[in-house]
Amino acid sequence: MEFLVRFETALPDSLSEEQVADLLVRERARATELRGSGVLKRLWRIPGRRGVVGLWEAADATELHDALSSLPQFPWMDVRIEPLATHPQEQ
Amino acid sequence: MEFLVRFETALPDSLSEEQVADLLVRERARATELRGSGVLKRLWRIPGRRGVVGLWEAADATELHDALSSLPQFPWMDVRIEPLATHPQEQ
Amino acid sequence: MEFLVRFETALPDSLSEEQVADLLVRERARATELRGSGVLKRLWRIPGRRGVVGLWEAADATELHDALSSLPQFPWMDVRIEPLATHPQEQ
Amino acid sequence: MEFLVRFETALPDSLSEEQVADLLVRERARATELRGSGVLKRLWRIPGRRGVVGLWEAADATELHDALSSLPQFPWMDVRIEPLATHPQEQ
Amino acid sequence: MEFLVRFETALPDSLSEEQVADLLVRERARATELRGSGVLKRLWRIPGRRGVVGLWEAADATELHDALSSLPQFPWMDVRIEPLATHPQEQ
Amino acid sequence: MEFLVRFETALPDSLSEEQVADLLVRERARATELRGSGVLKRLWRIPGRRGVVGLWEAADATELHDALSSLPQFPWMDVRIEPLATHPQEQ
Amino acid sequence: MEFLVRFETALPDSLSEEQVADLLVRERARATELRGSGVLKRLWRIPGRRGVVGLWEAADATELHDALSSLPQFPWMDVRIEPLATHPQEQ
Amino acid sequence: MEFLVRFETALPDSLSEEQVADLLVRERARATELRGSGVLKRLWRIPGRRGVVGLWEAADATELHDALSSLPQFPWMDVRIEPLATHPQEQ
Amino acid sequence: MEFLVRFETALPDSLSEEQVADLLVRERARATELRGSGVLKRLWRIPGRRGVVGLWEAADATELHDALSSLPQFPWMDVRIEPLATHPQEQ
Amino acid sequence: MEFLVRFETALPDSLSEEQVADLLVRERARATELRGSGVLKRLWRIPGRRGVVGLWEAADATELHDALSSLPQFPWMDVRIEPLATHPQEQ
Repeated sequence: MEFLVRFETALPDSLSEEQVADLLVRERARATELRGSGVLKRLWRIPGRRGVVGLWEAADATELHDALSSLPQFPWMDVRIEPLATHPQEQ
Repeated sequence: MEFLVRFETALPDSLSEEQVADLLVRERARATELRGSGVLKRLWRIPGRRGVVGLWEAADATELHDALSSLPQFPWMDVRIEPLATHPQEQ
Repeated sequence: MEFLVRFETALPDSLSEEQVADLLVRERARATELRGSGVLKRLWRIPGRRGVVGLWEAADATELHDALSSLPQFPWMDVRIEPLATHPQEQ
Repeated sequence: MEFLVRFETALPDSLSEEQVADLLVRERARATELRGSGVLKRLWRIPGRRGVVGLWEAADATELHDALSSLPQFPWMDVRIEPLATHPQEQ
Repeated sequence: MEFLVRFETALPDSLSEEQVADLLVRERARATELRGSGVLKRLWRIPGRRGVVGLWEAADATELHDALSSLPQFPWMDVRIEPLATHPQEQ
Repeated sequence: MEFLVRFETALPDSLSEEQVADLLVRERARATELRGSGVLKRLWRIPGRRGVVGLWEAADATELHDALSSLPQFPWMDVRIEPLATHPQEQ
Repeated sequence: MEFLVRFETALPDSLSEEQVADLLVRERARATELRGSGVLKRLWRIPGRRGVVGLWEAADATELHDALSSLPQFPWMDVRIEPLATHPQEQ
Repeated sequence: MEFLVRFETALPDSLSEEQVADLLVRERARATELRGSGVLKRLWRIPGRRGVVGLWEAADATELHDALSSLPQFPWMDVRIEPLATHPQEQ
Repeated sequence: MEFLVRFETALPDSLSEEQVADLLVRERARATELRGSGVLKRLWRIPGRRGVVGLWEAADATELHDALSSLPQFPWMDVRIEPLATHPQEQ
Repeated sequence: MEFLVRFETALPDSLSEEQVADLLVRERARATELRGSGVLKRLWRIPGRRGVVGLWEAADATELHDALSSLPQFPWMDVRIEPLATHPQEQ
C-alpha cells in the first residue's frame, strides 16, 4: 500500500553543530536503507521550504509508522500522512 | 489495518420517495453484509447531524475504497478517511 | 456514553531524562488502570505523529475530563473530544 | 449532562408558504415541549443570522440526538454540538 | 446583554510555584466577586482542556472587557467573545 | 455600543427584475432611516465584492439584530458581527 | 518539472446518461494519451472519494495547464496543483 | 498604488451559449481597455483552474472597485484583493 | 483612502519593566501624533483581547505601512490590513 | 516560468546586533544579484507586516528553490510559492 508522506523538520537550537551534523549523516544513512528496502520510493523537496513530500510503500499504517519513527530526526519531524488507493487505470 | 471513516450523505431532491426508501433498504442490507464480513466493525452517529463515524478494517486503502463504494448511497456520500496504526499497548 | 478522544503530548525540554522516564512509567500505569475500569476501550496511534486517538466510555463529559486529567502527562497534552451517539444499527 | 448546541436552518425554496408556516408552528410547539421537559434550557439568537445557540441537557449524546431530531425542521438544520463538563466552582 | 466567553489560560514557566498558587487564589476570589455581582452567570469546563466557556452579562462590550481584564490571570488568557441576542421564545 | 458588521447579499435567481429593483429601492430607503436614527454610522464597500462593512451603534446585540433584520434584503444577507469595546484613548 | 495534481470531478445532473458515458470514454482515452506522452506519470485514487491525486510532468505550469484543460471533464474538475522540486538524494 | 487581484468566474447554467459567447467577447474588450489605460498591468492563469491572478494599479480601492465592476462578467466573479506597498529596494 | 487595521501586540519577556513602560509612553505619544495628522481616525478595543481595530486613512498602502512602522511597538505587532472602498451611499 | 513567492522572516533573538546587521547587508547584496540575473523580477512589501511578496522567474521549482535558499536569511524565512501559468491575453 502506498502513502503520500510530507514532513518538515525543526531541529531545536539546543543541539550543537556536531549533533546536527551527526543527525544529518545518520538521517541520510537511514533514508538510504529505506530506499533500498523499497519503503521510500520517491522524495521531493517542497520548493522554498525545509520540507519534503515522499511516496512510501508499507504493508499498513503501523509498518509505515515504524519506518518513519526509525529516522533519527523523527522526534523533531511534523509528519502528515495520506493513504492512497490504487487507481483502476494503473492496474 | 483499521481506519476511522466518517461520512455525511446528502440525497438529491430529484429522487422520489420510493427511490429513497429503496436506497435505504439496500444501504442497510449492504452495511449488514460488511459487518458480517468484518469490514465494518463499529458505527456511531455524530450527534445532531446526518453523519456517521465508523471503525473499518481492510487490507489496505484500495480494499477499503471498494467496500465504501459498494454502498448504494456512495454517489451521494462525502467521505473522509483516517488511517490508524496499532498502539503498542494494544498488542 | 462513548467519546472519540485524540491528543498529542509535548513534554517540555526542561524535564530531565529521569523525569520523562518516570512520567512514561506512571502514564502507562494509569492508562492500564483506565483500561481495567472500562474507561479507555481502544487506543490507536496516529501514524507518523506523537499522537493517539482513542475510544473512551464515561457517564458524561465531566467524568471523561476527570479520567483524562488523572493521566500524569495531562498538563502537556493537547486534547480534542468528540461525543458519539449510538447508531440504530448497533442496538 | 449539558451541551452547547448551535444550528442554522435553511428551508428549501421548494416548500410552499403553507408548508413553511406549518413547520414554524410545529417547530415552536416541539421546542416548547422540550423546554417543559428540561431538555432545552436556554436559547439565544446569533445576532445578524438565522441561527441560534442553546444550552441543552440530556443524559448523553444519544438522548440529545433524539431530542434534536424530533424537531420538525431537523432535516434542514445544520447542527454543531459541544459537550460541556461541570466546572468545580459550580458544584 | 449576554455573551458567551471562552478562554484558555497558559501561565508561563517563569512563574514560581508560589506565584502560581497566589494567582489561583486571587483568580478564584475575583471570579467569586464577578458571580456575586451577576456578571459571571455560568461557567463550564471544556472537557479535556485547560479552558472554560462561560455565560457573562454586561451592559456592553466595554464593561465586559473591564470585567475580564480584572481577572488576575488576564495577561495569560486567550479570550474569544460571542455576543448573544435575546431569542423571541425567551421573552 | 458599536459593532463592526459585514455582509454579502446573494439574491436568488428566482426573483424577477421588478422584484429586485423594488428590493433595492426599499433597501436604500430603510438604510437611510437607519442612518438618520444613528444606528448605521458608516458604510464601506469591500473592494471587488458585492459586500459591505459598516459601523453600527445599538444598545445591545438584540437591538442590532432588530435593525439588521428590518432590512428588506435580510433574508438573503450573510451577516457577521464583531462587538467593539471603547478604547481608553478615545474617551 | 514534476507536479502533484489532485482533483475531484462533479458532473452536473443536467447531463444525460449518454453524455456521461461518452465523457468517461473520452476522458479515459485522453488520459491514456497523456500517459503515453509521459505527462501523466502516476495516478492514485483518494480512498472514499471521487477524486484522484497524480504525479504529472510538464515543462512548466503553462504546459501543465494545457494538459489538464485538454481533459474532456476539465470544465467540471476542481483542480489543485503543488509544484515539486528535485530532492538532492534523487539526483 | 498596486494590488494583487485574484478571481474565479462561474457563469450560471441559465445563460445561453450566445450569451456566454457575447460575454466573453465583451469581457476581453473591456480587459483590453483596462490594459490600455494602465489599470491592468499583468495577468496570469492559476494553473488547473478557471481563475486568474493579476497585478492592477489604481489610485485607491474605490477606483480599483470601479475598474473591476466595469467587467461584464463581474456579477459572477468571486474576487479577492491584496493591497501592495512599495518595497524600498524598488524605489 | 481608508483602511481597517487590526493588530495584537506581544512584547517579549526579555524586556525590562522600564523598557515596557517607556515603550508604552512612546507608543501613546506617536499614536497621538497620528491622530492629530488624521492618519488614525478611530480606535476600538477587541473585547477580551490585547488587540485593537482601527480606522486609518492614508494616500495608499505604502503611506499606511510607513505610519504603522513608525509606532515604537511595531516590531512586536501582528498587523492585518483590509482596504476599504467608498460606498455610493456615503458620497 | 513565473512564480509568486511570499515570505516573512523571523530572525531569532539569539543573534547579536552585528550578526543581524551583517545578515541584512548580505541579504540585500544577494537580492541585488538575483535581480540582476532576472530571477527576482518584482518585490512588494505586505503593508503592516515584516513580509514581502515577489514575482520570480526560474526554469522550474528546483531552480527557484536554489535561488531562494541562496538568500542568507533563508534559514529563518517562512516561504510560500504559487506557480503561475501564462495567460492567453499576455502572449
